Amino acid sequence: MRIKIINPNTTWSMTEKIGACARSVARPGTEIVAVSPAMGPASIESHYDEALAVPGLLQEIAAGECDGIDGYVIACFGDPGLKAARELARGPVVGIAEAAMHLASLVGSSFSVVTTLGRTMGQAWHLAEVYGMKRFCANVRACEIAVLELEAPGSRARERIVDECRRALDEDGSDTIVLGCAGMADLCEHIGQVLGVPVVDGVAAGTQLIESLVSLRLATSKRGELARPLPKPISGLLGDFALPAVPPALKRAA
Amino acid sequence: MRIKIINPNTTWSMTEKIGACARSVARPGTEIVAVSPAMGPASIESHYDEALAVPGLLQEIAAGECDGIDGYVIACFGDPGLKAARELARGPVVGIAEAAMHLASLVGSSFSVVTTLGRTMGQAWHLAEVYGMKRFCANVRACEIAVLELEAPGSRARERIVDECRRALDEDGSDTIVLGCAGMADLCEHIGQVLGVPVVDGVAAGTQLIESLVSLRLATSKRGELARPLPKPISGLLGDFALPAVPPALKRAA
Amino acid sequence: MRIKIINPNTTWSMTEKIGACARSVARPGTEIVAVSPAMGPASIESHYDEALAVPGLLQEIAAGECDGIDGYVIACFGDPGLKAARELARGPVVGIAEAAMHLASLVGSSFSVVTTLGRTMGQAWHLAEVYGMKRFCANVRACEIAVLELEAPGSRARERIVDECRRALDEDGSDTIVLGCAGMADLCEHIGQVLGVPVVDGVAAGTQLIESLVSLRLATSKRGELARPLPKPISGLLGDFALPAVPPALKRAA
Amino acid sequence: MRIKIINPNTTWSMTEKIGACARSVARPGTEIVAVSPAMGPASIESHYDEALAVPGLLQEIAAGECDGIDGYVIACFGDPGLKAARELARGPVVGIAEAAMHLASLVGSSFSVVTTLGRTMGQAWHLAEVYGMKRFCANVRACEIAVLELEAPGSRARERIVDECRRALDEDGSDTIVLGCAGMADLCEHIGQVLGVPVVDGVAAGTQLIESLVSLRLATSKRGELARPLPKPISGLLGDFALPAVPPALKRAA
Amino acid sequence: MRIKIINPNTTWSMTEKIGACARSVARPGTEIVAVSPAMGPASIESHYDEALAVPGLLQEIAAGECDGIDGYVIACFGDPGLKAARELARGPVVGIAEAAMHLASLVGSSFSVVTTLGRTMGQAWHLAEVYGMKRFCANVRACEIAVLELEAPGSRARERIVDECRRALDEDGSDTIVLGCAGMADLCEHIGQVLGVPVVDGVAAGTQLIESLVSLRLATSKRGELARPLPKPISGLLGDFALPAVPPALKRAA
Amino acid sequence: MRIKIINPNTTWSMTEKIGACARSVARPGTEIVAVSPAMGPASIESHYDEALAVPGLLQEIAAGECDGIDGYVIACFGDPGLKAARELARGPVVGIAEAAMHLASLVGSSFSVVTTLGRTMGQAWHLAEVYGMKRFCANVRACEIAVLELEAPGSRARERIVDECRRALDEDGSDTIVLGCAGMADLCEHIGQVLGVPVVDGVAAGTQLIESLVSLRLATSKRGELARPLPKPISGLLGDFALPAVPPALKRAA
Repeated sequence: MRIKIINPNTTWSMTEKIGACARSVARPGTEIVAVSPAMGPASIESHYDEALAVPGLLQEIAAGECDGIDGYVIACFGDPGLKAARELARGPVVGIAEAAMHLASLVGSSFSVVTTLGRTMGQAWHLAEVYGMKRFCANVRACEIAVLELEAPGSRARERIVDECRRALDEDGSDTIVLGCAGMADLCEHIGQVLGVPVVDGVAAGTQLIESLVSLRLATSKRGELARPLPKPISGLLGDFALPAVPPALKRAA
Repeated sequence: MRIKIINPNTTWSMTEKIGACARSVARPGTEIVAVSPAMGPASIESHYDEALAVPGLLQEIAAGECDGIDGYVIACFGDPGLKAARELARGPVVGIAEAAMHLASLVGSSFSVVTTLGRTMGQAWHLAEVYGMKRFCANVRACEIAVLELEAPGSRARERIVDECRRALDEDGSDTIVLGCAGMADLCEHIGQVLGVPVVDGVAAGTQLIESLVSLRLATSKRGELARPLPKPISGLLGDFALPAVPPALKRAA
Repeated sequence: MRIKIINPNTTWSMTEKIGACARSVARPGTEIVAVSPAMGPASIESHYDEALAVPGLLQEIAAGECDGIDGYVIACFGDPGLKAARELARGPVVGIAEAAMHLASLVGSSFSVVTTLGRTMGQAWHLAEVYGMKRFCANVRACEIAVLELEAPGSRARERIVDECRRALDEDGSDTIVLGCAGMADLCEHIGQVLGVPVVDGVAAGTQLIESLVSLRLATSKRGELARPLPKPISGLLGDFALPAVPPALKRAA
Repeated sequence: MRIKIINPNTTWSMTEKIGACARSVARPGTEIVAVSPAMGPASIESHYDEALAVPGLLQEIAAGECDGIDGYVIACFGDPGLKAARELARGPVVGIAEAAMHLASLVGSSFSVVTTLGRTMGQAWHLAEVYGMKRFCANVRACEIAVLELEAPGSRARERIVDECRRALDEDGSDTIVLGCAGMADLCEHIGQVLGVPVVDGVAAGTQLIESLVSLRLATSKRGELARPLPKPISGLLGDFALPAVPPALKRAA
Repeated sequence: MRIKIINPNTTWSMTEKIGACARSVARPGTEIVAVSPAMGPASIESHYDEALAVPGLLQEIAAGECDGIDGYVIACFGDPGLKAARELARGPVVGIAEAAMHLASLVGSSFSVVTTLGRTMGQAWHLAEVYGMKRFCANVRACEIAVLELEAPGSRARERIVDECRRALDEDGSDTIVLGCAGMADLCEHIGQVLGVPVVDGVAAGTQLIESLVSLRLATSKRGELARPLPKPISGLLGDFALPAVPPALKRAA
Repeated sequence: MRIKIINPNTTWSMTEKIGACARSVARPGTEIVAVSPAMGPASIESHYDEALAVPGLLQEIAAGECDGIDGYVIACFGDPGLKAARELARGPVVGIAEAAMHLASLVGSSFSVVTTLGRTMGQAWHLAEVYGMKRFCANVRACEIAVLELEAPGSRARERIVDECRRALDEDGSDTIVLGCAGMADLCEHIGQVLGVPVVDGVAAGTQLIESLVSLRLATSKRGELARPLPKPISGLLGDFALPAVPPALKRAA
């Protein structure tokens, strides 16, 4: 199967790390396509950044529909544009916060999310609520590390993240850690070994879940809220996002 | 004071109706600026439409910050981009679903939302939850009327909406109606007279609430999640959305 | 329009402060009538005090109905008698806890309530729940200051309240303050300037909201729970509270 | 032990029925004192009625404190004045809605409340929520029978109540009935026999629960919200309700 | 009436303490039968222990049905097997966590549970939720005392429990204590005297509640989920648990 | 990897169907071991049946720990013994209700559960709540088909299930179906084709999820509630269930 992992920010060094992580956990026959959109912010640390990342993300979904992609992972812990992406895609779409929280709820009594900047904590709590995972979420904690600092060689980010995870277990009463940024994907194994509890990275979790959905032929329900959007005029800069009256599936067959 | 009402779709006939409604309830000294963005979909009926409407909406917020706007109303019942807009604005921002639900909760025991297409009901329930208004929301009902059908001369939309409101009172046990689309603003008084219960239109409610916040000098808190977004590179089509290192307020003072 | 602000305790110095605050935020054409009931406790700091304040409050509502009052504000943070008042009034009624919490939810991610005595904290939490505002309420905190101490010249109450507000922001993760007593109305601007976050006083908030409801002609729904009470005999000390078979509106027209 | 059952309305025929019911289930050594207050409405069917019944109810609690009462039952399904009564009493106080809902949750999966007038349904739902019993409450249903109609000889109230209980079991998926008015106490056994499911009357339930609390020496906690109210001046008609600086317990010992 | 108190572990010294406690609060005419099952773990401190205690517990219920037992109390704070026991019994069944939490909610604003091992805290929270008592539960605290340590002569368990209860009141904002283990039944009175707040022991609470239900003739509803299990083959070690096609009630009459 | 699917009832024809379903979706390198316990009821349709199925289930987990099993699926929609199994196992354990509900929440807005007997509906709702999936669960519906009727050749069960699924979509507003019994695993594809919406079978979902957890090396956290049970004496019929002081993992290495 072909799975597209979309890092919705435009920092390709992070996209490559994400792609490598996904490939390291993907099943033998799975092709992982890891991309950043052609447009959008270099990192996503606010609702404003999210809003501006979503059109580029949707462009990648639309392109994927023409390229025969079977399922998508949105690789930013805010899960930006998830419902819009589901409307657009024939196959399933999962976000990495969604994936990480779901798997964490299967292996522990409660988890702590350890994320980057404090201003993103509200979004993590919001997602926990809409996914039904709030009852498992003991706490959301920020290391006050900017997303791109995770990419900087020689940064002390790793130590600070491990420290915050340790405090989480001690103070929150949780027994599982959820890493709150796609840029932390490469730290997952190390932290798990140091702390001796399950540590869930959303990129790996999302890759596994999307493979499961595809192999079970479970695609987004097109019956109600998540049906394909109605075609309509879109004006100005985003004019090319107007959907064709006939979905691309048919065009592709031509 | 100067209040900007942003209809996030690009159908100006609807924007004019919304502006007229806002002006009809605004206080004597208030200047109402009603606009549609320069870019975006002609109507908003899906998460995809919302996602593509938000950049244009944010452009209008950014412009408003340069033009001395005191407060903003987002005039689409899905309240798209509300948190991003709050990050960007110095003054307060309210959505019309938010405004209508809050005021409805002050005059009745529970309300029914009567909206356009069934596929938007999920978003109405979602907003009711995040605003804390789910406990007052007896039901969300769709008339299966497309947004732009409300603009069509000679449409039977009005009758169908009144009928659905009547059924809502009879079947939901509610005692108040919330109109679920900015395009219904001009029907509010009529429906209230026919049904004899409070009928809340979000455009009028939002206009009043934003005037209240401005006159009380209550602006969005900049302490945490809603602080101004960090400046960062934004690439591609939306490149002009990159925020200046110095917020426009200072530039304006120069 | 004529708005009646009822301080449900009988301490007139507090009533005058409340009236002054309401007038300072009211619209040009609004007449503010600020009163205390003729009967009831000197301050409200328990459920017992609330219960004994409500009959006097209702008497003021009944009188207001004869005097052509358009809307009412109940100016005690416990919002005593709110539903009974709504049954009795033709126009809208809001409580100051209700008003403050609603407006606070529009300008921040979460608020802390800072109130007087610890024993009233339960009621503040209760109101947050019934108004749907619990999800925005990060904490309720008491300064252990008696209500009437706020009226005492030379009291150090102001300093203690500012200190508690500062602790709230530091410890609760909130970004907005709600003042938990009508007697704090005159401190609102000062605290906001010191702390640099939105500080919401219920008297000002309630005045603005009731003006909004009246100007939108949104009155309490009379369809269900909040319909006018059925007339019936009331015996003993409160015998005069028996409602006439014909509501006073008709008498007034005579 | 001495238990005081307070019917907070002033209809003594109902009080006698309530007293008889309580006596029929009380333990051998228990003295049941059933009273109506000296002041207040003839029946309680609105928030207004409740508000005006509470002072008389509190007077009966205060009198009971001088008379050596060990525990109190508030015998109206709206549980008016419950928290204020708890502040005033040394011993425990329970409401009949509270008692009935608690016991119903012990014998079934979910219950339906069958009550008098539709306008009181909101209060029943409210109580279910504050007692934590909402998850057990499948529905609240009204027979549209006025409270005093239950007292009228020859009324068809009994048949209508049985019918509504039967519909509740069929339509709500519940397996237990809670009778929603103290005036239905005498119907409990009959309805249980007809329907073959547990039928809980609050007067009987409250009598049993208060006996249990008294015999376990579990009295209202005086540590926080429910501590004895602070003494303070009360003016006007209710002036006699001002509490003495020294609680009556000590006076009684003199 | 005949009440059977089942301590679902097999430590008879604890069963005797539980029986003595139940007898000390039971009504004059009540016969208390306190037993441990013939099979199962010596103490219950995990979900595994619970699972293995339940068959023995159900055996005691089945035996009770032949012996004319009127009601049952399950005397372990995890309330193991409660729903299965309700299916099996004709009369009512209550668990001691259930009983203690219900009564605690009647006498205070919120309670803290003080229990044995930290690993059982999750179950206490779970029960609080399913009984609707989570809103009253300020905290669950563990003393890290093994259940059987409570039985050891000369243990310092009592001091540690009192200390934890005191901390609960100071730190949790609660005003009532719930003892989280049947083995603490004999400490209830002492702790209440030391702390001056209501302290609720589940064995005493359960005894009183089951007596109330029996005397009100309120038995488990047999209409839906809690109907008698369908007879069917059970193979292997537990083969004797297969239910007879005809319930024992009829056999007993023979 | 080696995955053990435990059908907790003792009907081996059903176990074989479950095993075949699991094998049909498992990854190439996965060995599926499908078993029924040596003891327990022939089908699970009540809390009593569940309680008696759990010891046999735990025996299979214990055996699996000696046999090098990597992960377990509990293949009964009531997910009996899930937490106890997690305590006992080193690797991960998932229940099929848990698995099906989680995956359903990823592909639709809300799901309906279609199950066997009405008396099991309460348990399905309970599981939806404890997994955080209640917000996605539009309804639980019963076909009133006994579990073993699904195994009977020539039964009309299939038609009735399809009919109930169709009604669910029409009446519940859901867009996804969850099959509420392991015995329906073979109907999943057919129903999906007929209805055109995602239909989730828990056996397939559980197989995929457990493979994901194992391949990500995510095992149950042993830090708190789910740590290995403390060894202790177990008496009577279940005496062999007493855990060794040294866990079997070490013995196996010897």
